[in-house]
Amino acid sequence: MEDESLAAVREKISKFCGERDWGKFHTPKNLAMAIGSESGELLDTMLWMESKESVNLDEKTKSLVQEELADILIYCFRLCEVLSLDPIEIINKKIKINDEKYPLLESRGNSTKYSRR
Amino acid sequence: MEDESLAAVREKISKFCGERDWGKFHTPKNLAMAIGSESGELLDTMLWMESKESVNLDEKTKSLVQEELADILIYCFRLCEVLSLDPIEIINKKIKINDEKYPLLESRGNSTKYSRR
Amino acid sequence: MEDESLAAVREKISKFCGERDWGKFHTPKNLAMAIGSESGELLDTMLWMESKESVNLDEKTKSLVQEELADILIYCFRLCEVLSLDPIEIINKKIKINDEKYPLLESRGNSTKYSRR
Amino acid sequence: MEDESLAAVREKISKFCGERDWGKFHTPKNLAMAIGSESGELLDTMLWMESKESVNLDEKTKSLVQEELADILIYCFRLCEVLSLDPIEIINKKIKINDEKYPLLESRGNSTKYSRR
Repeated sequence: MEDESLAAVREKISKFCGERDWGKFHTPKNLAMAIGSESGELLDTMLWMESKESVNLDEKTKSLVQEELADILIYCFRLCEVLSLDPIEIINKKIKINDEKYPLLESRGNSTKYSRR
Repeated sequence: MEDESLAAVREKISKFCGERDWGKFHTPKNLAMAIGSESGELLDTMLWMESKESVNLDEKTKSLVQEELADILIYCFRLCEVLSLDPIEIINKKIKINDEKYPLLESRGNSTKYSRR
Repeated sequence: MEDESLAAVREKISKFCGERDWGKFHTPKNLAMAIGSESGELLDTMLWMESKESVNLDEKTKSLVQEELADILIYCFRLCEVLSLDPIEIINKKIKINDEKYPLLESRGNSTKYSRR
Repeated sequence: MEDESLAAVREKISKFCGERDWGKFHTPKNLAMAIGSESGELLDTMLWMESKESVNLDEKTKSLVQEELADILIYCFRLCEVLSLDPIEIINKKIKINDEKYPLLESRGNSTKYSRR
């Protein structure tokens, strides 16, 4: 059921932008900036709290996080659209790359970035 | 077919992190920072080009964009997981909100942010 | 003594970019993206640590933080230059604005953003 | 004259935060997030415009840019303070590093990142 909705939601985003004639603004460069802008808003929602506090967000903050996260996803799917990328496919490819970067044995309980090892 | 894969890819991300025992690092606050960090890398791929140039990326740059975009999506889905949010549901909700913010008639061909109108 | 150096360092940044003929790339929009990109790298240096851990950084991480922070400052001063803004003047103005946003009595020990109060 | 003001403005920022007892929130990690958040707001001010348009900003947008840029500088100076870093010194060091990364002859009129050459 959820499965049906990824295509549906991507179609809805495309229609939303098309109806507003926003295609001319939505170049890959500008969409990257939009993702950066929304990521900044996401950061802002949990700026001063302890990392552990963020595990149990109050309703108001959780709702803000949810909105910013949705905005990021929307722009990501829009960027996929304008670059003719399939989101599931590029994620699957990246997981394979990450799998080599972070081998299971060396990475357990350790978040050190591969390039700093 | 793609539809099947959203659940599958979310499961794969969860398994990838679980196997590496990264749960303790993946608080909502830290995941927001990770999204911010990857967004910065996405910005970097198209930093100095003209907006229009970014519509026709050379293969090397397109491949970089694709990797960074995938990383952002992976962290977004991971943040959905730790907050028990359904990505499709939060996007659908946000599209409704955006629909009210940017009414069709006033928004055609105009990207002015609603709060600045 | 330090005082002498702000003008000197701004001049050095301007010369560095001028000699490389980077003026054509350094539009305000592109410089904003560069600041966003470097901010993402700064986030990356302290991504998975506890907030308190970041108070006592090991030498290697501190040196990374220092480099990224310097890059952000360099691009900020460059943006000031291309927009003919004086950094000290705009900071002084903003401190006045923040002073009204965050009145002393209400803000003590409280980081709640003014717009959420 | 401007020279006098860097020390003065850094002192003012320190006093502003001290009076509000914000030291406990201002860990390096949190300040990096604050810089990321403000960078996102800066990106937002010039999101959909052409790169060249951003060279001649209207008064309203220029004033927004100025405020966001000031916020980033304020948090950068605050991060310098909590890490006992001298902003002028770290910029001077970074310019030396950049000078080796981007040799004059190879870099003229070319913004290709050193790591991608």
